[in-house]
Amino acid sequence: MFCQDDLPKILRKEVIASLHDGIVRIHNRKVYPGRDEYVYVSSVQGIADAMHQMVTQGGGILRLSLVALLFIAEQMAGGKIPLSPQEFTRLLAVVKDARRTNTTSHRILDDLTASLVLEGAFSDAERLVALSRRMVKEVEDSFDAFYDYMSDLGADLIQDGEGLFTTCFAEHTFILSLLKAYRSGKSLHVYVPETRPYLQGARLTAPSLQQLGIPVTLMSDAMAAHLIQAGLIDRYMSAADTVCMDGSAANKVGTLTNAILCSHYHLPFHLFAVSPDRTKQSMEDIEIEYRDPQELLMFRGERISEAGVQGIYPAFDTIPPSLITSIITPRGVLRPQEIRMKWAAGEEL
Amino acid sequence: MFCQDDLPKILRKEVIASLHDGIVRIHNRKVYPGRDEYVYVSSVQGIADAMHQMVTQGGGILRLSLVALLFIAEQMAGGKIPLSPQEFTRLLAVVKDARRTNTTSHRILDDLTASLVLEGAFSDAERLVALSRRMVKEVEDSFDAFYDYMSDLGADLIQDGEGLFTTCFAEHTFILSLLKAYRSGKSLHVYVPETRPYLQGARLTAPSLQQLGIPVTLMSDAMAAHLIQAGLIDRYMSAADTVCMDGSAANKVGTLTNAILCSHYHLPFHLFAVSPDRTKQSMEDIEIEYRDPQELLMFRGERISEAGVQGIYPAFDTIPPSLITSIITPRGVLRPQEIRMKWAAGEEL
Repeated sequence: MFCQDDLPKILRKEVIASLHDGIVRIHNRKVYPGRDEYVYVSSVQGIADAMHQMVTQGGGILRLSLVALLFIAEQMAGGKIPLSPQEFTRLLAVVKDARRTNTTSHRILDDLTASLVLEGAFSDAERLVALSRRMVKEVEDSFDAFYDYMSDLGADLIQDGEGLFTTCFAEHTFILSLLKAYRSGKSLHVYVPETRPYLQGARLTAPSLQQLGIPVTLMSDAMAAHLIQAGLIDRYMSAADTVCMDGSAANKVGTLTNAILCSHYHLPFHLFAVSPDRTKQSMEDIEIEYRDPQELLMFRGERISEAGVQGIYPAFDTIPPSLITSIITPRGVLRPQEIRMKWAAGEEL
Repeated sequence: MFCQDDLPKILRKEVIASLHDGIVRIHNRKVYPGRDEYVYVSSVQGIADAMHQMVTQGGGILRLSLVALLFIAEQMAGGKIPLSPQEFTRLLAVVKDARRTNTTSHRILDDLTASLVLEGAFSDAERLVALSRRMVKEVEDSFDAFYDYMSDLGADLIQDGEGLFTTCFAEHTFILSLLKAYRSGKSLHVYVPETRPYLQGARLTAPSLQQLGIPVTLMSDAMAAHLIQAGLIDRYMSAADTVCMDGSAANKVGTLTNAILCSHYHLPFHLFAVSPDRTKQSMEDIEIEYRDPQELLMFRGERISEAGVQGIYPAFDTIPPSLITSIITPRGVLRPQEIRMKWAAGEEL
């Protein structure tokens, strides 16, 4: 099992979000690595606002959601919030509403609330806090176990001497796969697209790999084809935001382009996913989030085009199963068409 | 034939570069459209420095090279430079050396010098100026005729109701094709990739189309695949920097990705080119210019990643003939494999 010190700074639990003396501290991914700063909040609304403003994002949402649950339990124990399952549910709904598309964290918060009710935690504030801490630790331990196993699978796929590319910031599974492959003595080089307009590749992925000592080179989003043609890139790996039951996926915009490049050049294209979304049968069920075009048209306060020019910003795109070599899951390295079968009769996650 | 007023501001001859009273005025494409400014120089070295620093670029190089020739002729007539073909050639070499890859402008300057010598222009300074002006006008008129004819061909290819995409800033042939198609009553919409890192799409293409009233939307370089999948894009058009004798091409990095997307989705992929480069048999003969990675890593003075992260910046990529639907030339809309035949026994250009 990996430990927190193996991870780049931005993936460590205590860095992403932590709770001390009634204050929630959240690492500000919006300004990293230019500035290495935290945002401090001390209310449920403050947590929700930070989440909505994307102070943390991606996998950070789950961590902050769990910290929010602990915060509410402690506030109830301290008498600052009435001790009741209805109030607990109402306040967690405020947190969930801050990022409506992250259904994994929503489901986990719902499951934890149900378990706390079942265990009679709301009869005794001290018991609520103790049970909440234990259950949150269990959830995080189980995710760490998934990440550990999935990154073993990912590391095994990487061959000595390979160049890899990715999209955006694929967090634990991707970073740990590279770390394990690299530490096992495989030579590798990661070409990271900057990932416009939010530059997660430049700001999160490249610094994370550099901190781990893994050879990394930043490129623009349009350069991968040339580097594949030049023989520098052999494999693609990223983490899917959503996997549907038919093995299609959604991920940060640009992933579809990279999947098509891999198909054209016969390179393996892998996505990590803890589980499929059982409510989505195919990519037709995925509604693409269109964000404010100003996020594209303005860069750090400066307009990049002429006034009046319109923009478009689909935040995600969808990848058909035919373009996916394999999906790396806690149930193994699966071909897309194996997803439905493997989750047909399985447990809920 | 189009007139200068039909063109967006940055493509007008007098805007790109002009000569009045011994002063060369060059429109500064580096800061446009944020600032609409000119650079003024009054020496051959000043012209060369501006060209090297990319104050103008792309098709602007030919215009500035011709203005440089007129400047030298006028300086000779004014007695400020010795009147001799050797000195004329030496000074034009300074201009040519400023951008070594633009072989079209080099060849034209060489041809004009040879013609001036043949016509005995260096026996009389007034005659040198008059002949230079006439010959420069002839060159520009012939290019305008090419642009006019090629954009007729391009406009014909565009179907009513289509969405188009492109790469970088494809200048006269591309802009005029869209203008003619639009003015003929065809409904169309152009999706322009911003073209990182230099943002020519955002700064030059999108404003040019907006000025002409053509519906245009800016996107990031990674969004075209999603918009094709969503049914918004039907066709690709750009102008090639180089076409080889086998019909392969080189263009701004990102063009190869867009060619692969078109191939995957069975969309037509067109490149404009006045003529192939007879010295290049295939894309293996093209040496890709790798520029300073700092141009990628820094954006308007701010670092986009962590200190120490390396970058890579291939400025161009190469597109194999198999990915090109047609090359639009003064000799017609050609399949790539027709290039060699059409130029096998033709005149020099």
